[in-house]
Amino acid sequence: MTVRNSKFQINTKGYTDIIDITHKVKNEVYKYGLKDAIVHVYVAGSTVSLTTIEYEPGLIKDFPEIMDKLVPASDFYHHDDTWHDGNGHSHIRASIIGNSVSIPLVDGALQIGTWQQVVLIDFDNKPRSRTVTLQVLD
Amino acid sequence: MTVRNSKFQINTKGYTDIIDITHKVKNEVYKYGLKDAIVHVYVAGSTVSLTTIEYEPGLIKDFPEIMDKLVPASDFYHHDDTWHDGNGHSHIRASIIGNSVSIPLVDGALQIGTWQQVVLIDFDNKPRSRTVTLQVLD
Amino acid sequence: MTVRNSKFQINTKGYTDIIDITHKVKNEVYKYGLKDAIVHVYVAGSTVSLTTIEYEPGLIKDFPEIMDKLVPASDFYHHDDTWHDGNGHSHIRASIIGNSVSIPLVDGALQIGTWQQVVLIDFDNKPRSRTVTLQVLD
Repeated sequence: MTVRNSKFQINTKGYTDIIDITHKVKNEVYKYGLKDAIVHVYVAGSTVSLTTIEYEPGLIKDFPEIMDKLVPASDFYHHDDTWHDGNGHSHIRASIIGNSVSIPLVDGALQIGTWQQVVLIDFDNKPRSRTVTLQVLD
Repeated sequence: MTVRNSKFQINTKGYTDIIDITHKVKNEVYKYGLKDAIVHVYVAGSTVSLTTIEYEPGLIKDFPEIMDKLVPASDFYHHDDTWHDGNGHSHIRASIIGNSVSIPLVDGALQIGTWQQVVLIDFDNKPRSRTVTLQVLD
Repeated sequence: MTVRNSKFQINTKGYTDIIDITHKVKNEVYKYGLKDAIVHVYVAGSTVSLTTIEYEPGLIKDFPEIMDKLVPASDFYHHDDTWHDGNGHSHIRASIIGNSVSIPLVDGALQIGTWQQVVLIDFDNKPRSRTVTLQVLD
């Protein structure tokens, strides 16, 4: 097997900012010219997530609204007793959603739906710079 | 390393239909006669998920009820302003649950609990045909 | 490719007990002396999860509180009609959070944040012994 690692940076606005990184992922993957592989997209950090969603204006509003209903930014979190940084909800949201997606490459094509994008979601309560790590294994 | 890809189809009823695909996964994996490997089970699409659950009649009722409490089908979603297809909740649920599971194969045995099944959950609001991609890497 | 499997046991108290397993994961991974690899951490079972979180006393209280708000232990679950073991909420929580994390190893360093730990969360309603399976693929 070969493990091919690459990284790229994403600047976010925080506050459940949802950023489509599909093109960056595809560019990195397709440059290797492989046929069959597994693509692992990963972001380090405890207030940021990766998942997939249909990236259209409606859902980009719906997703933050649902997250704020489930894990409200306005609630009290014990995390604030430790750090006083007001982002307890960011941590909990990130732990629920997770921070990687793994997508098969089959016959040279990334197996992602037409109406499905790979997104980075920054739950922190300030702008951040995030490093996405991409691994292509074949 | 070898990447072994295979695919199979699953017809669903939609509406958080939960389908046990453990036997299909095991059949595909065990036919290779491998000892140690990683098994990646994946479904493309933005209204469908893969996870594991104890597949028994009670939980098969509980899981959709909880999902409808957390992300109600009857709520308004901005997604409807874009597509008018009434499945905003389906998208949000799928983004939360995720669309792949990775299971170790150790000494020829898939490391899944006795009371644990790999399930496809179709959150869409109509019957669908879904393609599951299976990758076995060793 | 080489698939390196190892296992270790974790004893839990149940009731959304959150246990930091980062050191155990790092010890297993770093003993191989590899440069680039993918690390897959997995736990079998339908009432237990793996995720990452900043392991500090505040969040270790917040996470169980949020889970009990979203999927309350005190609610009725149809699962009880089948087994009468009172842990329907444990199963649902585990299916939502998932049971594995995959972390890149790049230039000999596990790509995990300074304020981010790999945790096992036992949602069952009694103490359990859990087996974590670790796969390092390069």
